[in-house]
Amino acid sequence: MTRTLVSGGTLVSTTGATPTDVLIEGETVTALLAPGTGEEFSVDTRIDATGCYVLPGGVDVHTHMQMPFGGTEASDTFATGTRAAAFGGTTTIVDFAVQRTGEVVEESLAAWHAKAEGNCAIDYGFHVILGGVDEDSLKAMDSLVAHEGISSFKLFMAYPGVFHSDDGQILRAMQRATDNGATIMMHAENGTAIDVLVQQALAAGNTDPVFHGLTRPAALEGEAVNRAIALAEVAGDTPLYVVHVSSSPALDRIASARSEGRNVFAETCPQYLYLTLEDHLGAGGPGSFEGAKYACSTPLRSKHEPHARDLWKGLRTDDLAVVSTDHCPFCFNDQKQLGRGDFSRIPNGLGLVEHRMDLVHQGVVDGNLSLQRWVETCSTTPARMFGMYPRKGTVAPGSDADIVIYDPAATTTISAQTHHMNLDHSAFEGVTLQGRVRTVLSRGRTVVDRGTWSGREGHGRYVRRGLSQYLR
Amino acid sequence: MTRTLVSGGTLVSTTGATPTDVLIEGETVTALLAPGTGEEFSVDTRIDATGCYVLPGGVDVHTHMQMPFGGTEASDTFATGTRAAAFGGTTTIVDFAVQRTGEVVEESLAAWHAKAEGNCAIDYGFHVILGGVDEDSLKAMDSLVAHEGISSFKLFMAYPGVFHSDDGQILRAMQRATDNGATIMMHAENGTAIDVLVQQALAAGNTDPVFHGLTRPAALEGEAVNRAIALAEVAGDTPLYVVHVSSSPALDRIASARSEGRNVFAETCPQYLYLTLEDHLGAGGPGSFEGAKYACSTPLRSKHEPHARDLWKGLRTDDLAVVSTDHCPFCFNDQKQLGRGDFSRIPNGLGLVEHRMDLVHQGVVDGNLSLQRWVETCSTTPARMFGMYPRKGTVAPGSDADIVIYDPAATTTISAQTHHMNLDHSAFEGVTLQGRVRTVLSRGRTVVDRGTWSGREGHGRYVRRGLSQYLR
Amino acid sequence: MTRTLVSGGTLVSTTGATPTDVLIEGETVTALLAPGTGEEFSVDTRIDATGCYVLPGGVDVHTHMQMPFGGTEASDTFATGTRAAAFGGTTTIVDFAVQRTGEVVEESLAAWHAKAEGNCAIDYGFHVILGGVDEDSLKAMDSLVAHEGISSFKLFMAYPGVFHSDDGQILRAMQRATDNGATIMMHAENGTAIDVLVQQALAAGNTDPVFHGLTRPAALEGEAVNRAIALAEVAGDTPLYVVHVSSSPALDRIASARSEGRNVFAETCPQYLYLTLEDHLGAGGPGSFEGAKYACSTPLRSKHEPHARDLWKGLRTDDLAVVSTDHCPFCFNDQKQLGRGDFSRIPNGLGLVEHRMDLVHQGVVDGNLSLQRWVETCSTTPARMFGMYPRKGTVAPGSDADIVIYDPAATTTISAQTHHMNLDHSAFEGVTLQGRVRTVLSRGRTVVDRGTWSGREGHGRYVRRGLSQYLR
Amino acid sequence: MTRTLVSGGTLVSTTGATPTDVLIEGETVTALLAPGTGEEFSVDTRIDATGCYVLPGGVDVHTHMQMPFGGTEASDTFATGTRAAAFGGTTTIVDFAVQRTGEVVEESLAAWHAKAEGNCAIDYGFHVILGGVDEDSLKAMDSLVAHEGISSFKLFMAYPGVFHSDDGQILRAMQRATDNGATIMMHAENGTAIDVLVQQALAAGNTDPVFHGLTRPAALEGEAVNRAIALAEVAGDTPLYVVHVSSSPALDRIASARSEGRNVFAETCPQYLYLTLEDHLGAGGPGSFEGAKYACSTPLRSKHEPHARDLWKGLRTDDLAVVSTDHCPFCFNDQKQLGRGDFSRIPNGLGLVEHRMDLVHQGVVDGNLSLQRWVETCSTTPARMFGMYPRKGTVAPGSDADIVIYDPAATTTISAQTHHMNLDHSAFEGVTLQGRVRTVLSRGRTVVDRGTWSGREGHGRYVRRGLSQYLR
Repeated sequence: MTRTLVSGGTLVSTTGATPTDVLIEGETVTALLAPGTGEEFSVDTRIDATGCYVLPGGVDVHTHMQMPFGGTEASDTFATGTRAAAFGGTTTIVDFAVQRTGEVVEESLAAWHAKAEGNCAIDYGFHVILGGVDEDSLKAMDSLVAHEGISSFKLFMAYPGVFHSDDGQILRAMQRATDNGATIMMHAENGTAIDVLVQQALAAGNTDPVFHGLTRPAALEGEAVNRAIALAEVAGDTPLYVVHVSSSPALDRIASARSEGRNVFAETCPQYLYLTLEDHLGAGGPGSFEGAKYACSTPLRSKHEPHARDLWKGLRTDDLAVVSTDHCPFCFNDQKQLGRGDFSRIPNGLGLVEHRMDLVHQGVVDGNLSLQRWVETCSTTPARMFGMYPRKGTVAPGSDADIVIYDPAATTTISAQTHHMNLDHSAFEGVTLQGRVRTVLSRGRTVVDRGTWSGREGHGRYVRRGLSQYLR
Repeated sequence: MTRTLVSGGTLVSTTGATPTDVLIEGETVTALLAPGTGEEFSVDTRIDATGCYVLPGGVDVHTHMQMPFGGTEASDTFATGTRAAAFGGTTTIVDFAVQRTGEVVEESLAAWHAKAEGNCAIDYGFHVILGGVDEDSLKAMDSLVAHEGISSFKLFMAYPGVFHSDDGQILRAMQRATDNGATIMMHAENGTAIDVLVQQALAAGNTDPVFHGLTRPAALEGEAVNRAIALAEVAGDTPLYVVHVSSSPALDRIASARSEGRNVFAETCPQYLYLTLEDHLGAGGPGSFEGAKYACSTPLRSKHEPHARDLWKGLRTDDLAVVSTDHCPFCFNDQKQLGRGDFSRIPNGLGLVEHRMDLVHQGVVDGNLSLQRWVETCSTTPARMFGMYPRKGTVAPGSDADIVIYDPAATTTISAQTHHMNLDHSAFEGVTLQGRVRTVLSRGRTVVDRGTWSGREGHGRYVRRGLSQYLR
Repeated sequence: MTRTLVSGGTLVSTTGATPTDVLIEGETVTALLAPGTGEEFSVDTRIDATGCYVLPGGVDVHTHMQMPFGGTEASDTFATGTRAAAFGGTTTIVDFAVQRTGEVVEESLAAWHAKAEGNCAIDYGFHVILGGVDEDSLKAMDSLVAHEGISSFKLFMAYPGVFHSDDGQILRAMQRATDNGATIMMHAENGTAIDVLVQQALAAGNTDPVFHGLTRPAALEGEAVNRAIALAEVAGDTPLYVVHVSSSPALDRIASARSEGRNVFAETCPQYLYLTLEDHLGAGGPGSFEGAKYACSTPLRSKHEPHARDLWKGLRTDDLAVVSTDHCPFCFNDQKQLGRGDFSRIPNGLGLVEHRMDLVHQGVVDGNLSLQRWVETCSTTPARMFGMYPRKGTVAPGSDADIVIYDPAATTTISAQTHHMNLDHSAFEGVTLQGRVRTVLSRGRTVVDRGTWSGREGHGRYVRRGLSQYLR
Repeated sequence: MTRTLVSGGTLVSTTGATPTDVLIEGETVTALLAPGTGEEFSVDTRIDATGCYVLPGGVDVHTHMQMPFGGTEASDTFATGTRAAAFGGTTTIVDFAVQRTGEVVEESLAAWHAKAEGNCAIDYGFHVILGGVDEDSLKAMDSLVAHEGISSFKLFMAYPGVFHSDDGQILRAMQRATDNGATIMMHAENGTAIDVLVQQALAAGNTDPVFHGLTRPAALEGEAVNRAIALAEVAGDTPLYVVHVSSSPALDRIASARSEGRNVFAETCPQYLYLTLEDHLGAGGPGSFEGAKYACSTPLRSKHEPHARDLWKGLRTDDLAVVSTDHCPFCFNDQKQLGRGDFSRIPNGLGLVEHRMDLVHQGVVDGNLSLQRWVETCSTTPARMFGMYPRKGTVAPGSDADIVIYDPAATTTISAQTHHMNLDHSAFEGVTLQGRVRTVLSRGRTVVDRGTWSGREGHGRYVRRGLSQYLR
């Protein structure tokens, strides 16, 4: 087996950062070595990581490649999206297979496998969205947990008529998850109430993108989070993972449940840490459609309220355990345009899979987060939370050699001109961040080095996941 | 005009208890007099209240006379129910006119007026239950507030398919109430989730009455209260009044909103202060149907949890502002029996309109509540909360002469043999309480004196109500 | 006995406002009458209150007349201070007799009686400040409660070396109060920590008045309130009344304890509702001594924080039960000057006994408080809280005829030129408020009418107080 | 350098447990190897860890070897105590050098160095107790942080007249720590109030050991924690570490501050997780002195309250970050006896340094904690919290080879007959726990193997510590 030694770098883990060399044999890390210790080993390849951090590859547990939504489809395929992810230091994604009402869960999963298989540049797993909770889909949960490496199921309190589950369906799915050990992921917004606000806004002629945010008030995110927590309590303290937390009321409820020792976990996404309702979703002012680029759900929040500051705090306190992207890109020119004149028709989603590691590293530079929490929230915890650790999320003997060599002294400037996502704009256009992904290894293979692609479609393999390791 | 002097008693108000004589002219109180002061007045009738409390007549803002429910109808008519109320020291009720989906609100109200008019022994008002929130019923809200003396509308988060409103409907009704000043009354239980638990219990063969309680966990009351508060916030801090609060989680959320200064109010009922899931709803043990007598929604709670203690505390702190009864009696022999073998078919409700004043007075005797809070929670606040003050809820010049002379030294023993409600059993059978209603005046007329009835059907008049006075 | 009828006005109580005539015989209210009802009475004097509110006279439970402090003495004597109070619609004060370490409590009380007796224009009572808690003073507590009409004792967590009690002394006094039923009033600021900040500020050359506020951070008020609540818990849920609450952290802790049902009560003062650290205590900017006029403890708080808004909220929610003044005036020219060049030597205190009723009424006009809560917080509750009800705090048969006729259509402009306090400046100089005290009766005698004084020194009598009525 | 390979075991870290071989060269870990990978290495010694966990050696950051207290001295010397620690799998202790009022901090530290140097079987560091905060000791803080490897200073809110600092002293020490980066460790009990309760109990003839606990109510621990948090806030968010948290009120305040993102950390100790006021401190019933064995401060808490359950929860949620022992043993026969007839004279403390790892592992077995959290709370976090990581607290290349080989299948029975502490009794006498320390390495040297001692006095070296790594 080929031997590679990554030497001279500083290995960053969840607890510290120390000079450590990493030995890779084939696809696997086989040794961590104090500098100089590995000299007896014969090594085929040496990668010099001097001056750089050596990290476990990023794990993005919330992506939607080529996701059908709002009459169109997310613009990144599994091929383009995973390649872009790798450029950004992410070596594993967990995407969502979508079952809609009336569809057979296993068939939906098969369809998503078909989309991904042979196309991915990095390893990938699936959560399953249950759009139709019924006897059949409940049974399928057990089977997917036991046999298919699927240990997490996403439900929606938003989007009535599309993905929405009512509280009875949610309760039933949670009960099942309590039994089979799966995690329930929740899009927590009160969609039924939001739809009233949306219809009222449109009826009043308020059609600009900013109304996408104004009709989704933070109070209705907080409410839904509280409800999900209550339903999970009734269902027997089901593992609950709240996705894309964007607001203080939502965080408050999560923090409170966690202080009570409940099995409640949550993620936020970079957009909620940096972008705002006023400056971005409302960009261009009245009549402008520029803000459509920033339309995602949960929405961006007002800069006049302490949401972003609180979310950084939540990342520090572990009330927010994970940063994922909710990557779901739609091009401005031919997709976001569907919502011109009616914000409710803007395809919801931002393309960020490539920039997560850099954006959160900037938080380290800014003093919002420790270096260790960067690795923890972006790699180790998502891997543990979704049953992929220690194969993913750590650089340790026996783990997959998914490794990022990160240069903290270099910078990254984000632009649609240079990014690798299939997206004609960027929510962070022109932004320069401190730090840069230098080299990326996926299962021992260098796929990115100093901006050059050496990966290949189909290198990525499906990751069968176990249960969340946060419950043990 | 006839003059009556109630002399020698101790007038109990919300702030104290002092020896005071009360002069009544016709239907109205015209003077409060220091003992001995009234001697220049010529008086037609003197009522000696020596040794007794003199109180404003009780105001029960939550009754359901001859309410159609679960395939039958509450067993008290407006005639029998108001007569029983008067025996128990209650001189005003506010009952509920029921609009169901598809019905015209004004017609529903008219139907209820027809039931009550000419039949009531004491004064009465109406709230309106909106079973179907739509454009027409929303418009009707404005009209009823402006012209019909209806200032409060009840919605249900429970009973899907019957009275249930979804969150969008609730939001719309709340927005309307914010505009027209009305109060939204809320039955706060997550009925959608509860129905799942009910179906699961029945499917598992758990059909006894106790499962009525076990399938309505307190967490789902707390959840619904939280949701109602959030929706009221989004609707512009709509006045919200949570009915029949039965549990600590519900109270906690109410207390929290109130500490934040929100327009959130709540009531509890005597059953939640005294009766328990184990001893009452589960009476007789497995296989027994005795517990059906105690089936009401929200349900009785476990004695192993601090609900009752917390509710008394809430009454002291004013987080619970009102004690009402949710009087909705169903006879055991021919009505409750509908649920034999299927607890979900037990007509929900207890008959308590006659005993509220005594049961809460017992709380005073037990040290759970002050004398002033007794009067406040049972008479003054309900009158103020629902726009009837100062006509009701106080003994003061200009107010209706609805007066109770209460003997704290006497006792009351409750029994179906002796009560005046049209009900073949009592949830408090055999219980002896300290204190007894001696004499009751309704608008100046003695209707009860030492157990003798001197009222008449049709004496009671409809009370047109204004807006809640708690918001001014 | 002379009979007076106050007719044509609207009697405002804690629960409502209704047209009511008030009959007074001698010093006492003997009847409340519906307009027109009193015609059979022969009346000596008629006072026309048309267009006016008729209120129970104000009760200010926190004043310091001719209080020795900081090397000088508060500038109002019992004579001038009570006269000014009456001009402002306050007809009862409760002042503080001061026992210092080593002094005999009974002698201190006697000394204060000597200052007040024969000099007061309105009725007055005393709390006792225990500056030295020891065996003797603890015993004195029992005796004063039983025999002297003193039912409240004030302790200081501030002012080490002056009035400060350590936590052991506080605990002992609280235990005693639990036994004898008295209320412990607490000046809640961590004086030990504050003194460090004061010394550090002075050492750094920060001597301006604004540093009086900056060295008394709100966190140290919140801390002390929390500590007092904890000590009262350990002492057996002693009745605790926190004086001059000025900040959100303090209020939060009080609200939390109250939600738990604890015997915790609190007051705020008008200065905290209207004046700020920046605009008032820091008036004139660096080097100016103007801010000395606004130096009081607890201090004015920053306008950039939500203290004032929260305090109004607390008054609405009853977490703040009382508005008193902490009246402790010091003239600018010869008293406040003691602190020029050293803010810590500024005599602490504002003169506000004359303006409380107007300042809180302005809150009614501004929509911050209901008319009922105005009467409740300024008259009825302080009377009940400190055992003077129903003699004080209500207009009801049998109560002292302490009555204010208040014209809501007139205005009041505050100025040192026109006020009646012995004070050469005013913290509200030039401020115009909506509403005006028209006529004031003290025990049946008109003492103020349309700005004219008809009272006399010595009319005021000592009020023996019972226990707090909030605990019954 | 000697090479040792620990092979066949499962390496447990804060994030997982994986089969890993550990290579040691001299005193240091130089490689982690996937099983089988190390074969090219020539190895001098092989240690077979098959079936065992391999852990970083335990780090006990709260011990008091030969501590003078209450007229006697803790019975374990640095020699006996560190040997016992090693037997229990602890390879680093941080003890306390004690400065008393009037003493020079540097001299106190020197005295403690003299006690420890040459005597310790394992590595050790020092915190410094500041018994007298003044200008000199404040200056010494800076110097000890900069030059002496001391980064944490302990203050006492308890023990007036002995170690107690007043709030002004605490504030000043905290301000200094904010500047120099040190952590303030706090014994949080309101000693001033407690002393009153103690004197009252003794005066009432309540002299049994159980009164040691009854006079230290949990409310006074919660109060002190709240106060320490407030003072740290005023001092600029000083790093605060609350020692020996024993009760729910204390934990609640810590959890709340942590949710707010404050620099607040805490430890608990095994005694609070397992032992109770009734069963242990009150052992033997009235008149018995048996309970003296269990007298420690903070005290054991009532089993009728949820303290222990909450503490386990706090360990899961990380609101409690560390388990230490507060090891401070006093023999029953000649030391604890000092308190016979007067509980306040019982030397406070338990001997537990030997049993911490086993007792917390039992929590893993019982399902109260994950295996990862065992290692985290007992080794990794204490090392990071007190600036010793990555030298201590992890098994990683470059770290000291402090390693425990732990056999989860074996059992440990605790008894004074067999333990290695210099203590004539055990608080856990006769208790059998699942799991057993098999082999212990201290800096590469095997000191314990299967119950046999191969260490030596003086092997242990002083560890210079850096700042807490939790703040970066």
